[in-house]
Amino acid sequence: MTLSLSSRSGKGKANRVVCVTSGGTTVPLEKRCVRYIDNFSSGHRGSASTEYFLKAGYSVIFLYRRGTCQPFCRSLPDDPLLECFTSTDDSSFQVDPSHAEVVKRAIAENRSAVNGGFLLKLPFTTIFEYLQILRMIAVSLRSLGPSAMFYLAAAVSDFYVPWESMTMHKIQSGSGPLDMRLAQVPKMLYVLRNEWAPVAFCISFKLETDTDILLGKADMALKKYKMHMVVANELQTRKEEVIVVTEQEKITVRRDTTQPGADVEDPLIKLVVHRHSAYIDA
Amino acid sequence: MTLSLSSRSGKGKANRVVCVTSGGTTVPLEKRCVRYIDNFSSGHRGSASTEYFLKAGYSVIFLYRRGTCQPFCRSLPDDPLLECFTSTDDSSFQVDPSHAEVVKRAIAENRSAVNGGFLLKLPFTTIFEYLQILRMIAVSLRSLGPSAMFYLAAAVSDFYVPWESMTMHKIQSGSGPLDMRLAQVPKMLYVLRNEWAPVAFCISFKLETDTDILLGKADMALKKYKMHMVVANELQTRKEEVIVVTEQEKITVRRDTTQPGADVEDPLIKLVVHRHSAYIDA
Repeated sequence: MTLSLSSRSGKGKANRVVCVTSGGTTVPLEKRCVRYIDNFSSGHRGSASTEYFLKAGYSVIFLYRRGTCQPFCRSLPDDPLLECFTSTDDSSFQVDPSHAEVVKRAIAENRSAVNGGFLLKLPFTTIFEYLQILRMIAVSLRSLGPSAMFYLAAAVSDFYVPWESMTMHKIQSGSGPLDMRLAQVPKMLYVLRNEWAPVAFCISFKLETDTDILLGKADMALKKYKMHMVVANELQTRKEEVIVVTEQEKITVRRDTTQPGADVEDPLIKLVVHRHSAYIDA
Repeated sequence: MTLSLSSRSGKGKANRVVCVTSGGTTVPLEKRCVRYIDNFSSGHRGSASTEYFLKAGYSVIFLYRRGTCQPFCRSLPDDPLLECFTSTDDSSFQVDPSHAEVVKRAIAENRSAVNGGFLLKLPFTTIFEYLQILRMIAVSLRSLGPSAMFYLAAAVSDFYVPWESMTMHKIQSGSGPLDMRLAQVPKMLYVLRNEWAPVAFCISFKLETDTDILLGKADMALKKYKMHMVVANELQTRKEEVIVVTEQEKITVRRDTTQPGADVEDPLIKLVVHRHSAYIDA
């Protein structure tokens, strides 16, 4: 695979490339797979962050779970084609007035970023696809040195069924309860940081449902995997605030509640870009 | 919930309503859910069948998994809005010539069926939502007697974690392998057939990856749940052929390979409608 992305100019961010991962990975439970374990993630964080990175002058590799939220599409309804459009008699299409602005913006901004070579979208489904593509991206971006960033917002599976112990055919029901033993996925964050992309700026995410253990787990990830930043977020409040954990500090980032429709990703990406600049200059 | 569907006329199928279920159900593994087990299903079978039922004069309740394939959209690319459209300077939108026909057909036929009251779309995600909505539909359609049909193409979870034994928070990794005991989902086909909709015409599906056990399992489902038909399909060949199992016979239904783009659902729905007519007249 050869990755080809244009570098941006004019905003002082020439040559900066961020790989944003988005959505959840799956692990198959059968070789001829009918069932799998999935990690919930709408892809909202990754797609919103991608928009703000583009705005800041970065080129973005968007490594996303098939079917999850796309950049510039966050405020569209499900199945926007069927929900927003009516066809007229000639060869053009009308969009319902209530959706016109968002639809127009989504189509135009996506086209402009993709055709301009600033946005490369690569889909995955299983954790195996995800890790393989991530490694290829990391190796490809090595030449950029500290100008490359990994912003790992995807919800990556912690447990999987090793191929050797996987059943060939669909697991049969009808014979009582099903006992499953899942192995831990090796922690690839460590490999990414130390082998695949040792000079890139690396940010990982920690999502918990239990606030009591969140910051402890984020701190541990920072030290164990030598991340430059860990973004800690709690399932219930993740769209309102996150806590950015670095070696020196813990910074709470909140969305601007005085602005209608303001995202927490707006100030978050500003902070990330600022720290990335300092990292490059160091 | 009150279901309101127009009845069709002019094709001798007035008052016939089919509930088509489509896509896979999920079972959560945690109460504040981050992980779940999913059953793979693109929703292709259900959405294609819906199109042919509408063509045959039926009204359709399309009970589908959020995000899966929609009727009239099977030949569209993923993210059709971003892939097919360009916006022009005025308020209209242009579609790439290569996609123009499919896009136009999708928008027009969906609008016509939905606005005409012949197509009602109801989404689900978990198996709990699925079963609740299915029961409501069954009760609502009781007054139609044998004119109602259930065409159960959804891939329904066989195993789940009972609420009492479900962990409250995200399951923690880092402490070795994960052992899980999943309970069997009660077979609701039996309840649907005997309690919720005892007079409706009922068709269920049996998908296996192992051809050797497929027909035996289909036969068993037919007898155990008293289905009127079981459609047996094998994962690898399911778009080419299916075997329809009834009490009297086993009928192999194949797509017409001499016609480009012909689906196996075309002859399948013709057969189903024919048998449904005989059932109503009996």
